[in-house]
Amino acid sequence: MKKNNIAIIGASGYSGEELIRILLRHPYCNIRAVTSRSYKGRAIGEVFPRFAESELTFTEPDVNVIAEQADIAVLALPHGVAADFAVPLLEAGVRVIDISADFRLKDAAVYEQYYSREHPAPELLDEAVYGLPERYRIDIKPARLVACPGCYPTSVLLPLLPLLVAGMINPQNIIANSLSGVTGAGRKTELPFLFAECNESMRPYAVTSHRHLPEIEQELSASSGSGKAQINFIPHLIPVNRGIHSTIVTELKNDCKAADIGRTFKKAYEQEPFVRLLGSSGLADTKHITYTNINEIGYAYDGRTERLILSSAIDNLTKGAAGQAVQCMNIMMGVEETSGLC
Amino acid sequence: MKKNNIAIIGASGYSGEELIRILLRHPYCNIRAVTSRSYKGRAIGEVFPRFAESELTFTEPDVNVIAEQADIAVLALPHGVAADFAVPLLEAGVRVIDISADFRLKDAAVYEQYYSREHPAPELLDEAVYGLPERYRIDIKPARLVACPGCYPTSVLLPLLPLLVAGMINPQNIIANSLSGVTGAGRKTELPFLFAECNESMRPYAVTSHRHLPEIEQELSASSGSGKAQINFIPHLIPVNRGIHSTIVTELKNDCKAADIGRTFKKAYEQEPFVRLLGSSGLADTKHITYTNINEIGYAYDGRTERLILSSAIDNLTKGAAGQAVQCMNIMMGVEETSGLC
Amino acid sequence: MKKNNIAIIGASGYSGEELIRILLRHPYCNIRAVTSRSYKGRAIGEVFPRFAESELTFTEPDVNVIAEQADIAVLALPHGVAADFAVPLLEAGVRVIDISADFRLKDAAVYEQYYSREHPAPELLDEAVYGLPERYRIDIKPARLVACPGCYPTSVLLPLLPLLVAGMINPQNIIANSLSGVTGAGRKTELPFLFAECNESMRPYAVTSHRHLPEIEQELSASSGSGKAQINFIPHLIPVNRGIHSTIVTELKNDCKAADIGRTFKKAYEQEPFVRLLGSSGLADTKHITYTNINEIGYAYDGRTERLILSSAIDNLTKGAAGQAVQCMNIMMGVEETSGLC
Amino acid sequence: MKKNNIAIIGASGYSGEELIRILLRHPYCNIRAVTSRSYKGRAIGEVFPRFAESELTFTEPDVNVIAEQADIAVLALPHGVAADFAVPLLEAGVRVIDISADFRLKDAAVYEQYYSREHPAPELLDEAVYGLPERYRIDIKPARLVACPGCYPTSVLLPLLPLLVAGMINPQNIIANSLSGVTGAGRKTELPFLFAECNESMRPYAVTSHRHLPEIEQELSASSGSGKAQINFIPHLIPVNRGIHSTIVTELKNDCKAADIGRTFKKAYEQEPFVRLLGSSGLADTKHITYTNINEIGYAYDGRTERLILSSAIDNLTKGAAGQAVQCMNIMMGVEETSGLC
Repeated sequence: MKKNNIAIIGASGYSGEELIRILLRHPYCNIRAVTSRSYKGRAIGEVFPRFAESELTFTEPDVNVIAEQADIAVLALPHGVAADFAVPLLEAGVRVIDISADFRLKDAAVYEQYYSREHPAPELLDEAVYGLPERYRIDIKPARLVACPGCYPTSVLLPLLPLLVAGMINPQNIIANSLSGVTGAGRKTELPFLFAECNESMRPYAVTSHRHLPEIEQELSASSGSGKAQINFIPHLIPVNRGIHSTIVTELKNDCKAADIGRTFKKAYEQEPFVRLLGSSGLADTKHITYTNINEIGYAYDGRTERLILSSAIDNLTKGAAGQAVQCMNIMMGVEETSGLC
Repeated sequence: MKKNNIAIIGASGYSGEELIRILLRHPYCNIRAVTSRSYKGRAIGEVFPRFAESELTFTEPDVNVIAEQADIAVLALPHGVAADFAVPLLEAGVRVIDISADFRLKDAAVYEQYYSREHPAPELLDEAVYGLPERYRIDIKPARLVACPGCYPTSVLLPLLPLLVAGMINPQNIIANSLSGVTGAGRKTELPFLFAECNESMRPYAVTSHRHLPEIEQELSASSGSGKAQINFIPHLIPVNRGIHSTIVTELKNDCKAADIGRTFKKAYEQEPFVRLLGSSGLADTKHITYTNINEIGYAYDGRTERLILSSAIDNLTKGAAGQAVQCMNIMMGVEETSGLC
Repeated sequence: MKKNNIAIIGASGYSGEELIRILLRHPYCNIRAVTSRSYKGRAIGEVFPRFAESELTFTEPDVNVIAEQADIAVLALPHGVAADFAVPLLEAGVRVIDISADFRLKDAAVYEQYYSREHPAPELLDEAVYGLPERYRIDIKPARLVACPGCYPTSVLLPLLPLLVAGMINPQNIIANSLSGVTGAGRKTELPFLFAECNESMRPYAVTSHRHLPEIEQELSASSGSGKAQINFIPHLIPVNRGIHSTIVTELKNDCKAADIGRTFKKAYEQEPFVRLLGSSGLADTKHITYTNINEIGYAYDGRTERLILSSAIDNLTKGAAGQAVQCMNIMMGVEETSGLC
Repeated sequence: MKKNNIAIIGASGYSGEELIRILLRHPYCNIRAVTSRSYKGRAIGEVFPRFAESELTFTEPDVNVIAEQADIAVLALPHGVAADFAVPLLEAGVRVIDISADFRLKDAAVYEQYYSREHPAPELLDEAVYGLPERYRIDIKPARLVACPGCYPTSVLLPLLPLLVAGMINPQNIIANSLSGVTGAGRKTELPFLFAECNESMRPYAVTSHRHLPEIEQELSASSGSGKAQINFIPHLIPVNRGIHSTIVTELKNDCKAADIGRTFKKAYEQEPFVRLLGSSGLADTKHITYTNINEIGYAYDGRTERLILSSAIDNLTKGAAGQAVQCMNIMMGVEETSGLC
């Protein structure tokens, strides 16, 4: 089978590194370009010694060059910058998978509110497909522009969506406490992310206004028949490299039975290659899924308080970013969805 | 001033180590005995090399000997075993500070339900004072038997009690997600607590039935005028040595204003030496309080969801165990409450 | 191509887990049996949740059954026990790759001295091939019994052997300071390996008498034309999960030039798929090679002290155990040596 | 007793934080000023939340103001900058304890070689006393200018000096492999010190040319009767917050007996409050001494290789920086040397 040509734009962060790691061994992809303004001209092995054996070199990102080289471009750029590349690449006929936040929100006003800037390409928001394969597989296949979900949203949405679709839970009463490893903050040289600051520390942040909040609510609402969802999303920083664990507390609707939860999950996810159901009383652990594209989901119904507790773990760089991008890419290329992933 | 004679019973775990650390430098205490069945006859410096300069030696715990040596005994024993010492020590006139769970619950039936054994000394439950100084200081002073709170309960109760006492929050709608360092599991040689199992891992456990749950609800209810409190208490294990962070979500009662929260906290805790109020939008970080007896408390009112988010951090071994025991001891001895603590 | 049938004997430790991880995706292997006395009857996913999707189940190790199922058996057993399986398996015609220490030493008396027991099968010591492919590839290919090197020895030998073979360094003057992650201690529930004991700790141990010492000296001597090698091998325990870094200090022989070191390494390892040469002033970092089978080797010649400093990093579970076993297995099976490895 | 007035100049790094921590509870010191150009005007609790209860505020460093406020100034500044303050402060009659590298080296040419700049105040090098109390206590007492040793040198010198003074070891044959926690790199926002870069990593650096090397050799030579000492000093970065462990390999002189090592150490250090001797076969562990001013020293003589292995652990921020500065300060103030330290 002919290999697809892939360009990774903005490849010098942790998501970029993970994209390279996965795509270097992908059976149906050729990495044709990895770009980085700060590292252009340097071998990728100089920046990520893990790839010392690769002959790839960071290049200046040039839309015209990329358009000639690549069938698909993955944008691992900061929000705002991503759109600047997406527009001309799409015009040049390159399919785009964006792992920034630029095309996740359908409403440009919400983007402006949470990202403190006008949306750079609002005309593309309708077309962009939210890259959560378990929910939008059919739309991803032919898409020109896929907006991969944020890491936190992936961990929160996958356990909630089947229950919302089935009308089992109250979309107004959802509280998610999420814990993230430090790669989630990006490869940024800022004081709070120094080893000696993070190690032996644990703390919440942005507890009422994290940028992943509107994205989560948009997708919860889209899957809920009963009106707009509302959530408290409370992220925490934890001293591990990789992994997100979300503990979600919600309540069943009056006519729903705890006994049906397992069945609903099974129906939704039994065939999904990257969802691992732990069943009732099963609790997820990031240790079990780091370096994989798997979302581990468990739950416990607390009869005493009549609340449902969901436990969800992903690797923030894999299922939460690069792995999910490759899963979408596989769908778009028409190959086995698990190709190159584990 | 005459120093008080202290015995530490069951001193070979992490709480015992922390008790020794604090009491070795305490201006008003003499450690007269440290007991340990497994280590008897060995210098404490052999078991905890940090104390190599001390001449203390672990002894077999013998109630008669302790009764002669000590004014106050601190029990750092497993539950069940603690009561076996508390009863004869009290009879012999020794005041007892128990950091096990044996005397925290007022209802022997609840103890039996959660600890899977009959209560060993139910006749003492009424007399035992719950050793949370910020709440029960007056009762602690003359007490013969003080039952120090668990580590999780301390971190959950201190931020909630003033709001309950002020009638500001709904005691039926409280969800606490707590994160604990691994010393919280004790110095137990069990597989899940090996370095290679905990490191790069994060996971919830005992999400509907943790033993600290009834203790939390008992104390929340006792401070609530409006009936029995009910809580979802969801603990998580995090790869740090020390520290607990609790994120608590609750709702204000209809007639209460977010603007009053800060005032309520200030009124309750302004004079407290071991509560640090971070104010509105302040969020706690275990890093700030490890090796201290301080409870850092911040909060954020989310106007959008109309929920209140509390953020509370303690050192599980200090304010969550040994430090709190010494704080109670200081009160009982009639010395400055902060003596020997920081 | 027909797949080879593999049995993993004693698969419940960290090396066993890594063997399963690698072999589950190996293109030319079928895992036919994974044995564990303690976990027999349980799905491997129960013990290692990472493998939840596998249908493999731990079985009681039974030589007759294994002999029928497997072409090659990998022994991931404690020393002493490994020999008990190797003997009958070889008799039954199964090729054996042992990752215990039982067949590494050629001299049964040395085994007895360091392992405090008589050698269980001295008659096999001559036949056993030391499983370091970069040195013994030709002997490994037809071998019935391969004794994989210890993790520390691999990290110490690979940088030293080419220099010894070339007669460039003094085999009597070698000092290796090695740092190991905690998985190196095995999945043992012992106090010193608890998270709270290892985290925020670093310490040497067994500085004059580690069991890997005679194995290192045996192989250094075998590659040295100029008599028996002698080494100070000083291991340290470091709070990471995976990885070994060895810093080795030695001296060049009088007639040797620092300028030749690079050429010697290049000649020896340029074609080696699992040796990454960092060149002069290049220093290895475990971070670059964890989860790979690569040995990263750098060096610096200190003209001031006239000493040579070698820096060598491997993943203790991969190149230091399971990965090296699979590398040997690939050679034995006659397939591409890198199959299933990265 | 009248308290001494102390100024901490450049107090926003980890050593500055540790100085504040120690001096806030020191019985004979008043912190009169803490300066920081970047944080001037901000409460120290804003920068180091651990000190939230303190009313100290960072000020612009102004020599005239400090001269009026302080009896002793501690300089926790980068090298080069420290001298700019030391000169005018000394002129103004303030005693200076410098924890930078500016006054450690006696030879301005060596300073220039290793720090790539002309020495800013060579006229003070003769007067400056190397602030290692165990060696220079008598000189420290009356000193105007004390240059506190680097963290690595402290850990390497204390175990070696008594052996050199006693003429027991060969000063030309010393190899030190040191491991340091990440606070040792300072509070610098540089990529290699991010959590996700350091965690699960271990690596040597600057293996032939670390800036602490000439300082170590200067002091080894000064204690050696038999000519200039020469050392290989090989530092490594390890994922812990605090602590340095040095493993030192050397050889006994021909006429010296291993049996005398213990006696030599005992004679030198028996009365030292901050040296803990572990004796023969005792090995140091940073875990035992973090947050203390203690240097734990053990050793093992390897009769097989005829080499002596020393194991030495300190807390890099305490005995390696702030604690040692306070120990010197106590000596200079004429108070109990252990005041305020543990």
